[in-house]
Amino acid sequence: MSKKIWIPSARLNNCCVRALSRAGVPEDHIKLTLQVLLTADLQGIGTHGTRRLIPYIMRIRSGLIKGAPKIEITAPAPAVRVIEGDDGLGPVVGMTALNEAVTAAQQTGVAFAGCRNSNHFGPGAPYALAACEQGMICIGGTNAFPTMTPWGGKEVLIGNNPLFVGVPRLNGNHFLLDFAMSVVARGKMRSAAEKGEEIPLGWALDREGHPTTDPMEGLKGYVLPVGGHKGYGLAVAIDILAGVLIGSGYGPGVRSLFQQWKEPQRVGHFFICLNPRSFLPPETFHTHLESLVGMIKSSTPMDPQKPILLPGEIEIATMAKRKETGIPFDEETWNALVALSEGRYDIKVSDL
Amino acid sequence: MSKKIWIPSARLNNCCVRALSRAGVPEDHIKLTLQVLLTADLQGIGTHGTRRLIPYIMRIRSGLIKGAPKIEITAPAPAVRVIEGDDGLGPVVGMTALNEAVTAAQQTGVAFAGCRNSNHFGPGAPYALAACEQGMICIGGTNAFPTMTPWGGKEVLIGNNPLFVGVPRLNGNHFLLDFAMSVVARGKMRSAAEKGEEIPLGWALDREGHPTTDPMEGLKGYVLPVGGHKGYGLAVAIDILAGVLIGSGYGPGVRSLFQQWKEPQRVGHFFICLNPRSFLPPETFHTHLESLVGMIKSSTPMDPQKPILLPGEIEIATMAKRKETGIPFDEETWNALVALSEGRYDIKVSDL
Repeated sequence: MSKKIWIPSARLNNCCVRALSRAGVPEDHIKLTLQVLLTADLQGIGTHGTRRLIPYIMRIRSGLIKGAPKIEITAPAPAVRVIEGDDGLGPVVGMTALNEAVTAAQQTGVAFAGCRNSNHFGPGAPYALAACEQGMICIGGTNAFPTMTPWGGKEVLIGNNPLFVGVPRLNGNHFLLDFAMSVVARGKMRSAAEKGEEIPLGWALDREGHPTTDPMEGLKGYVLPVGGHKGYGLAVAIDILAGVLIGSGYGPGVRSLFQQWKEPQRVGHFFICLNPRSFLPPETFHTHLESLVGMIKSSTPMDPQKPILLPGEIEIATMAKRKETGIPFDEETWNALVALSEGRYDIKVSDL
Repeated sequence: MSKKIWIPSARLNNCCVRALSRAGVPEDHIKLTLQVLLTADLQGIGTHGTRRLIPYIMRIRSGLIKGAPKIEITAPAPAVRVIEGDDGLGPVVGMTALNEAVTAAQQTGVAFAGCRNSNHFGPGAPYALAACEQGMICIGGTNAFPTMTPWGGKEVLIGNNPLFVGVPRLNGNHFLLDFAMSVVARGKMRSAAEKGEEIPLGWALDREGHPTTDPMEGLKGYVLPVGGHKGYGLAVAIDILAGVLIGSGYGPGVRSLFQQWKEPQRVGHFFICLNPRSFLPPETFHTHLESLVGMIKSSTPMDPQKPILLPGEIEIATMAKRKETGIPFDEETWNALVALSEGRYDIKVSDL
């Protein structure tokens, strides 16, 4: 692990703009990409933030991602938009779809935008935030390259297919839920293995399907879905909504960002936007929302030192803080981003 | 536990029709109610099947459910329907909304129907099935009276708010996912307590917030959400979508079917229907869906005796079987349904 340094967000932004520009990404696409990845960094979701530009740009250079794709938007039904991503950057395809869903939902009350032939698109929370900032409720999901088995199975066929939900609040502390269908990311097991620590039962099975506390055995074996058959079922449902329904990749037809360098990823995403104004007068909606939120936030915690949190609360607080403090990077990753911004490509792409 | 008997579905149907008719429920509402509850019995979800007519009818007699409500449907936006349930039977309000969402989605591609002032509506699977039988994908949810605490909290404020997803398959073996946000129902803990058995760690906390294997301590304490903070977050999201957004009850504003006999339940539900034909030609959609399903079903199980299952597979198989064998009841419950069909109301309502 190299030294940790804090980069001001404006400096990080400039570095990323240069890196993307050199890779042939047009200005409007750079803006959409950084709206997602820089927000992820600010929200504290650094694993899915600007450091992902390293594999993204290496894939552009390998011809697997198109830096300047021809994104096509069709409206096959009044409340449906289909976005052909043309193997463009995931955040570009995703934000284009989200914005289409927001615009359509202003007319139809609810709208569904689905993306095909996209790529890894960052975390869901920045999309949920973007919807909330436009006054919309958003339910979204993406498929991902397979890391899990069907429940009770031995073959890795299903991604951890995250689901996210955003609900706008007038004070800007939006409800932002964003979670993957695996109990934990494989990265957490790698980190435990590096530190020589045990993992809790329930994170993973070994290769024979037995519960294990040994992170190395877990890494050789199987990451478990959240809630067993429940998380498995929801992961398949999201694969159908994000992949099968839109005509994108699904199951092992979705390729890895890091491990597969022969074919485009063919990731699919979906965004359902709902206009709260179609249901209730805004003051009524917000009065009731704040009443529910207030009951939850003011309720008694088990541990008096740990107040009850709402989904998104940590991310929103971190965002405010990091606008002041900058964003933490390990020096090696920051140096790689600087190299990309200077047109040097002799860097190592590791699964961060 | 009284004797188990098997009742042919036609006989069960006739008994329930008489019971509902005597309670003042009009013919079309009886049909919708049994479309849900009898399907639940056939699917093997008996806890949420026709035995629920016992509290439903007792609540009609107490004036808490209206047997003949004035259900109002409004279309505030092209793809949105709001159903004012007028404290009607949950399955009547719910099926009305589902059918509205199906019809709207035929025009707009996707549609959202929300219900307010409804009641306990059975399980989600029969609604998912009804959508699939009309060729629609359905994502739905309902809130429920609180049984869970916010994550890390001590106050019971949130229902186990189930989520369900249906995806139609041409062979009728539809994908039917339906799960509650609690790890287990309280009934499973009661059943373990009755048998003097331990419960697994991870089901519940005791009153002090410590993990417990004692079902009695768990019953006095707290049922845990699926996946910890993930299930908590999703339960709140569903409370917002089903309750807050539609202007129905939410949090402790949703009353218990069994324990609160002074006010209507004020349950809210939502149904998002998606027309797959808006996205891909039907043959393409079904080819890809069967390809994903085929990969999953033909993959290697951990235990060769336990083939991989898809969500809904058990329910669909049970349905086929029970159309032949009838539906199992304990004698006491069956006698109570017979009593209701004969206008005898001196029966005990227990939380089944």
